[in-house]
Formats: sequence, structure tokens, C-alpha cells
Amino acid sequence: MTFTILRVLKQPSPDDASNVSKLIKHSLIEFICTATFVYFGTLSAVSTGTKLGGGSGKGEDVARIFPIAFCFGITIMCMAYSIGHYSGCHLNPGVSLLMFFRREMSAVRMCCYWIAQFTGAMLGSLLVWGSVQGLAKSDENLITRNPPFTLGSNILDPEITVGSGFLLELMGSFFFYLVISQTALDKKGIAETSLVAIPIGFSLVVVHVCLIPFTGCGVNPARIFGPSIITCMADRSQCTTVIGDWWWIYYIGPFCGALLVSEFTALLKWQVEPEVVEY
Amino acid sequence: MTFTILRVLKQPSPDDASNVSKLIKHSLIEFICTATFVYFGTLSAVSTGTKLGGGSGKGEDVARIFPIAFCFGITIMCMAYSIGHYSGCHLNPGVSLLMFFRREMSAVRMCCYWIAQFTGAMLGSLLVWGSVQGLAKSDENLITRNPPFTLGSNILDPEITVGSGFLLELMGSFFFYLVISQTALDKKGIAETSLVAIPIGFSLVVVHVCLIPFTGCGVNPARIFGPSIITCMADRSQCTTVIGDWWWIYYIGPFCGALLVSEFTALLKWQVEPEVVEY
Amino acid sequence: MTFTILRVLKQPSPDDASNVSKLIKHSLIEFICTATFVYFGTLSAVSTGTKLGGGSGKGEDVARIFPIAFCFGITIMCMAYSIGHYSGCHLNPGVSLLMFFRREMSAVRMCCYWIAQFTGAMLGSLLVWGSVQGLAKSDENLITRNPPFTLGSNILDPEITVGSGFLLELMGSFFFYLVISQTALDKKGIAETSLVAIPIGFSLVVVHVCLIPFTGCGVNPARIFGPSIITCMADRSQCTTVIGDWWWIYYIGPFCGALLVSEFTALLKWQVEPEVVEY
Amino acid sequence: MTFTILRVLKQPSPDDASNVSKLIKHSLIEFICTATFVYFGTLSAVSTGTKLGGGSGKGEDVARIFPIAFCFGITIMCMAYSIGHYSGCHLNPGVSLLMFFRREMSAVRMCCYWIAQFTGAMLGSLLVWGSVQGLAKSDENLITRNPPFTLGSNILDPEITVGSGFLLELMGSFFFYLVISQTALDKKGIAETSLVAIPIGFSLVVVHVCLIPFTGCGVNPARIFGPSIITCMADRSQCTTVIGDWWWIYYIGPFCGALLVSEFTALLKWQVEPEVVEY
Repeated sequence: MTFTILRVLKQPSPDDASNVSKLIKHSLIEFICTATFVYFGTLSAVSTGTKLGGGSGKGEDVARIFPIAFCFGITIMCMAYSIGHYSGCHLNPGVSLLMFFRREMSAVRMCCYWIAQFTGAMLGSLLVWGSVQGLAKSDENLITRNPPFTLGSNILDPEITVGSGFLLELMGSFFFYLVISQTALDKKGIAETSLVAIPIGFSLVVVHVCLIPFTGCGVNPARIFGPSIITCMADRSQCTTVIGDWWWIYYIGPFCGALLVSEFTALLKWQVEPEVVEY
Repeated sequence: MTFTILRVLKQPSPDDASNVSKLIKHSLIEFICTATFVYFGTLSAVSTGTKLGGGSGKGEDVARIFPIAFCFGITIMCMAYSIGHYSGCHLNPGVSLLMFFRREMSAVRMCCYWIAQFTGAMLGSLLVWGSVQGLAKSDENLITRNPPFTLGSNILDPEITVGSGFLLELMGSFFFYLVISQTALDKKGIAETSLVAIPIGFSLVVVHVCLIPFTGCGVNPARIFGPSIITCMADRSQCTTVIGDWWWIYYIGPFCGALLVSEFTALLKWQVEPEVVEY
Repeated sequence: MTFTILRVLKQPSPDDASNVSKLIKHSLIEFICTATFVYFGTLSAVSTGTKLGGGSGKGEDVARIFPIAFCFGITIMCMAYSIGHYSGCHLNPGVSLLMFFRREMSAVRMCCYWIAQFTGAMLGSLLVWGSVQGLAKSDENLITRNPPFTLGSNILDPEITVGSGFLLELMGSFFFYLVISQTALDKKGIAETSLVAIPIGFSLVVVHVCLIPFTGCGVNPARIFGPSIITCMADRSQCTTVIGDWWWIYYIGPFCGALLVSEFTALLKWQVEPEVVEY
Repeated sequence: MTFTILRVLKQPSPDDASNVSKLIKHSLIEFICTATFVYFGTLSAVSTGTKLGGGSGKGEDVARIFPIAFCFGITIMCMAYSIGHYSGCHLNPGVSLLMFFRREMSAVRMCCYWIAQFTGAMLGSLLVWGSVQGLAKSDENLITRNPPFTLGSNILDPEITVGSGFLLELMGSFFFYLVISQTALDKKGIAETSLVAIPIGFSLVVVHVCLIPFTGCGVNPARIFGPSIITCMADRSQCTTVIGDWWWIYYIGPFCGALLVSEFTALLKWQVEPEVVEY
């Protein structure tokens, strides 16, 4: 813990917020691209769900897991190739926090990104709603569920305890952020700049395959925020479904994951000159 | 909007149509490769469909979605590696329009490519018909459905409104064309020339996973044109099935997507010297 | 046609067979690696089949298609990275023929590779038999099917005519060999040497997804030869199942595909200096 | 056999254990990353299993195979990109043994890695248990199965003989280790350093698709050790299930695979100057 706190306190943050027009532009890019990311990620959960029997969005079938996981991970990979050289392509408040911990980003810029990411996720969910509004149906009790499929919100599986859910989100964030940190920031790694988006995107696919049946897989506070807030605002009766008492694990889990990666990175750099083992 | 219109009006288009023999050759390559692309894309929809219960091609099962999406996207990736250095490997009238908007292509060459792409898609669908003619069967009403499976035509899901269908095609085209534009044309991006086909192909897989259950996923006017025209010409009774009153979303959607990407690219280049954030 | 014939007649073939010890070594590598390729390809067909209801190997279920396709394609990709710099990693008599047509290989070396590939495929099938012998069971008529699952032999779907089967094998071979030819031999392509195995492997996955439900997907005469010969030798009663009157499409199809690619490549090089369009 | 034995006896091993602090650090990295690898690999087996009917973990359904295989293989790929330049990212006692046979690693370092890998795998399984403890349920006989799903332990399919199981593990290890050896160590290969993790990870996916229905796919003694030991320690009644009389194939198989690859590599280098065939 000390390492990250010391680093944040002592090392100066980069001067990346003084050029206001650039900051606005980069935040705008994060806003649009987070909306696109949330759109394709959660839309895949709805699209694969429509072909199953029920309409409640809870019947996670085994054949759905991989396509949904693929969409979340590979959208990040493609976005990193498309706009990574502009805003850095975080699309994830946890990644921005990690960059802040690593002193790659100032607190001001992180706050601008956070606002862009959370509001962008809401836009993405609104677009999903517009795209699938025809699926809103009355269930057996004649209660119309609208927005349909709760727009792909994360819902903790009732069989999983809140503590286990936190552990799952923490481990998922740790692995995903570790890959980001080690490939994108560690210049001694084997991945060239041109390749880093591949392990980043594919690691997110892995995390989703493992976590979808349990927590729905957040590891991104913006991705959980968008669909659940829009669903809750549109239909108060679904509020308790999408924002249960477990809601905090989707925010605290990724943030603790960012801290853990920041510490693990300090361990990796423990010796002044790490010997590079040829792989 | 102004940006693209202004650019088209003011910037000269490249002189890429004066060498007629090269233009013919490149159009011929687009013709053959669009046929191959449509062949493998729509054939995957038929091949995975034959193992399901029904024979109508409407029973989109969840396990079919990923293999179909994979074939469409990865065929584009492989073709880009194979003939990208000759014709540019558009295989998609929307991509050619985007290249025209970006002033990478003259109007004359675009028209030649369009003709090659639409006729190539028809050839691809004819080859599919030849490959699966044995599947033509009489249904319970003793009406023979031939060509079988409507050759993998796009059909809008009846639960989805036409407006939602347009939004889906627009968003899908926006994401796919954005990745093409940002990786293949933006020289400051992180993807080396050798790698650009990977995010392009994989982004098309993502778009297909999300859109197949709703619109069947066009984002390519040639891909919808080929199977539906051949089916309609071969069997008039299937015309209303494959060319519904929603037919325009598969053409206007991608073209609006190309315009949107052209505008978004202008936003990205808003400042004269965009600061490159290290990813 | 003339182009390939003329090229074979006029252009000298490379002197790649005079060093006999090298020729033996490379043939030995082809032998071992074709065995490994056939082992993992056909084993995936058996492994995914054991979890389905029937035991006849004919019940191709939709969820099996992608994993089988993945194993065939990605094994080629991994082998190309592993031994491509030794023998060229053909593992396929059709690819060796294509290399002969392109004048990249002498007739002597091609014959040595063919022998290595066909016998290697038999070894691979023997290893599959050893690995799954426990699955040999008596069916409802108390007839023991051994080897089980016909070791993953290609069997033409009875709904598909032999002509359609030939077209499918021809198109599949055309696409797969085109990608090989254009990425591995065309030095002006966008794929660096380090990357060529990726489109090659992934194009084979696409071809398998499209062809498995119809022909089982050959596009490789060695891959069909190994399992069917071993099955036929071990159990004469299964001979008619695995070697039907359609057997020739799996040999003539790929060889015609190699010829077609050789012709298409000549078209691509039609002008002396092809203008490279930036992708 | 002689080759490997001679090489081990005659060639000096690298001096990679004299710097004790580095050795401890690298072992610690192997410990943490093996835990993460086992966590995501075996968790995917549990997560995809929870959506099936039964709760015994034995009902391997065909749709589960690919997602599980993907998680094991791609986690290795991502880890290689993240920490490959520190410890070499073995995460597998068989790989460490291969590196010892190839004289890339001293016996002391190999022992340290082995301890780190086996104990790391135990930590990974403990974390899985913590993540899915809510799934522990009583079965029809009111016997509570805890840990649930035997934490994703490898169990030999009862239809497969122990000899076949050994052959499967041997072949799987041979292919996986061959790809590692030829891409990571052979500097003349076509894969640049930046790319080697892709064939390594994808080859492991292929091996898993083929082996999961039969042996559960080990090819990594640490991966089998962790879940089975933790399950056995926690619930003695499950000991006989997870540690059958076939237990040795998961250890001897990979070690023989490493030896086989070491021999095959000697064959590849048989001539002093291997002629590189352009692929």
C-alpha cells in the first residue's frame, strides 16, 4: 500500500490538463467511445438473450457466454487500435485510476475522463434501448418490462455471496489491469506498441467468460453504471433488481484491483535493474 | 455535415481512374473477392442452419451466432491480407463511399467498385445456391423453398421496428467503418500496416454478434443485395420475404454510417497537431 | 490454364532436391507434423462428438462446428510458426502442388512431401485410434464400431449432391490456397513474414465452419486419406461409409483449387508493375 | 534419448541462480502468476458448468469446451505478454523441465520454479473456492459437495483407458511444448519475439479442445495438482474422485512430452546449418 500512496504523494503528476481544448477533445473522445463500447458490449447480451426461451435476461445459457465475452473484449481491442493514440482509450474509470496511481495522468484529467466515461455509458445504454425497444413485452403477470432485458445490466447471481462477488470482481480487475499496465506501460515487455491491444482485449474476454455466470462481469464501473441507471430511471420497479445491496462490489472491486496492480508493479520493479529473462 | 461536404467540394480527388487498364483490373479483383466474401459469409449462415430443426432459415439459434459472425469478419481480414495491396480490399460499397468522403478515391473509381461489388455479390450467391441446391425441400404445405434458406438473406426480425433496425445498422456501420478509417488511414495510430486487418476483421465479428439476431447484420449493401436479388429472381414467392418494406435500412444505414465516420474523423483532427497520448 | 502450364514448362524449378540429406530431413519433418496436424484436427471431431447423444459420428451439432474448425485452422497456424522455417510447413498435398505450380518447388521434392504427408496422416489417425479406443461400442444392432467415430473421416452429407460437394471443396481450397499464396509468396503484401501464419490459419477456420456440415471439410487430400484408409483397413464393413463414390472430390477439388489460385495469381500480376493501393 | 541426456551431462547450465534476490523475485512472480493462471482456467470450468443441469461437474457439454479451452490458452498468452520478460512465464513444471533439458535453465532455478508453481496452483484453487463457495450444495443423497465442482479438477473419463489417457497427455504436451520451444527459443523462426505468445496461447487452446472431454486436459502438472490437492484436503470423501489410480498420467505425460520435444528439436538441428525454406 505504501508504495502507491508514496508515489502519488511524492512523484509529480504529468502536466496533461493545462491545455484545456485538448483536455475537452480527449474527454469528448472518451465520451463517444465509452458509449460505443457499452453499446456493443451490452447489446451482445441482449441479442444472444433474445434467442433463448425466457425474456427476463436471467437465463444465462452456456452458449451465450463466449459471444458476449468476445464482444466486450474485442470492442476494447478495436477501440484501442482506433483512438488509443488520441485519448489513450481507457473507457473505464478503473483504468483511469490505475493510470493516476502509476503517475501517468493528473487528478484533473482523471476526473474529466470519469465524467465522460459515466455519461458516455448512459448514452450507450440509451442507444441500446432505442435499438431493442420492440422487445419490451408483458410477462406472465402482465407487467411490461421496459426497458427490455434491463439493457444488459450486471446482476449478482443469487447463489453467490456478496463477498465472493467482491473477490471475483477484484481478481478479474487485477488480471485485466495487470495486462494493461504491463503491456502498455512497461517498455521492456515483449509486446511491441503495435501489438499491445491484442493481449489487453483478449484478457478481457477471458475475464468475462469466467465472471459472466456469477457477477455478469463488471471490472468497469462505467459499464455497470450506464445500464443500471437508465433502467432504474425508466422503470422504478426494476430498480431493486439492477441495484441490489451488492452494488458496491462493481465499484470498489475494480478500484481495489487498480491498487493491487499498482502494488504488484512496484514488486516487479523491486530491483533497480530487473534482469530480463529471454522468453 | 459541413466538413464532409466541404471536403468533397474543395479537396481534389486522387487521380486514380486515368489508368483504365489498372482500374479494370482492380475492379475485377473487387468482383472476384466480393463474390468470395459473400460466398463464405452467407454459406456459414446456411451451413450452421442445416443442423437445426427447421429449414426456414429463421430459427436463429444462439450457438449459430458466433460461427456466422466469425466467418464474415475473418474472411474480410484474410482478404485484406491477400489483396489489400492491389485494390484496397473494400468489398463493401459503404467502405468505398467512406474512402470517397475521405478523398482517398475518385467518384469514377467508386462507381466502378460499386458495380463490381454488387455484381460480385450476385455471383457469390449463385455459387452458394450451386453448393447447397440439395437442401431445397418441400415444407409442410408442400411448397418447395428453392433457393434453400433464402441463400442467407438478411431479414429484419419482426419484433424489431424499422427505426430500431436503422439505428442498429447505423451503429454497426459506424463502429466498423471507424475502425477501418482510424487504422488503415491514420498513420499516427498504434497499428502498423501489417496489423490493421486484425482490428478490422475482429470489429466486424463483434458487429455481427450484436446484430445477427435483429437485422441479420448487413453493414454492407452488397452483402444484402446479392442473396436477396438472386432469391427474388429465382422464386418470386419469396420476394416479399427477402425484400420487405424495411429494405432501405440496409443501404441508407451504411451510407449514413460512412458520413458519420467522416464527421467523427474531422473531430479527431480538430486541432492542427493532436497530442499523441502514449497508450 | 495456359499460364500455369506455360510456367511449369518454361520456368526452371528451384534446385531444392540435390541435397538429399536435407530433403530427407524436411520430408521427415513433414511426416511428423502432418501426423500431429491430423491427430489434433480429427481428434477434435471425436472429442466434441463424444458429448452428443449418438455415437455414430454423423450427428454434427451446431455447437461442435466452431471448435472443430478452430482446431484444424489454428494447428496449421501454430505449426507454421514452429517449423515453417524448416520444411515450409505444407502438411497438405494441395499446398505442395500449388508451390510446384508457382515454381517454388521441384517435382522431386513435391513427390517426397506427398509421400510424407499421406503416410504422416495415417500415423496421425493411428494415434487417434490409440487415444480413443475405449469409445468403441456396440450399437443397437450389436455391431461393434471400431475404430470409433470412423476416426473423424470426411463423409459427404447425403443431402448434398456430388457436384455440389465438388464445388464446395473447390471453393474452400481456392480461398485457403489464395491466402497462402498471397501472404506467404507475395512480398508486396501488407502481412510481414512474422504475421502470415495468422491469416493462413484463420482462413482455414472459416473454410471449416462453412464446409463441415456438408463435406466435413477436406481441402487437404492427406487429411481425408489418413482416417478413411485406417478405418477401412481396420474394419472392412465401414469401408463403404468412409469411401463412397464421392471419394474423388476430396482429391480433385483441392488440386483444381491449386490450379485456380495459380491462374488468379497470374491475373493479379497481369500488369508488369502493379500499382500498390495503400490499404 | 541420448541427445537430451548427453546435452544435460555435457553442456554447462546457465548461471541463473547465483543472484539469490533475483531468483526469489522471479519465483515469487511465478507463484503469483501461476495462481492467477489456475484461477482463471479452472474458474471457467466452474462458471460454464453452473449453467448446466447437474451440479456434479461431470456433465461436460459440448458448448462448454471452447470457452474453457479459450480461458486456459489465452490466459497463458496474456501472462506471457505481461511478465514474460521477468520470469519467462513458465507457469508449468513441464515447461521448466523443457527449459532445463534445453540448457536454458539451471537445476536450482528449476526447483525453485517448481515449488512456486505447485504452491501457486494451490493458492489459485483456494481463491476459486472462495469465489464459488455459494455453489456448494447437497445432492440428491443429501451429501454436501464442498468444495463445489471439485474446483475444476482433472478427472479421467471412465470410458478412456489409462494408457489412452497417457497417450493423450503425451501428445498434448508434445504439441504445446514444441510450439513453445520452436517459437520462443529458435531465433530463426518466422515469429518475432513480439508475436511468440500468440501461437503459444492458441496451441494450448487447441490442445484443450481436443483433450477436455477425455482427460480434462492437464499438460501442466501444477494445474492438476492445485485443484485436486485442495479438494482432497477439504473433503476426504472426494479424494478418490479427484486422485484416481490414473493420477500419474498428468505428471509423467507432460514430463515425457518435454523429453520428446527435446529430442525432436535435436532432429531439427541435425545438420549443422539447416537450410531455411522461405515460407
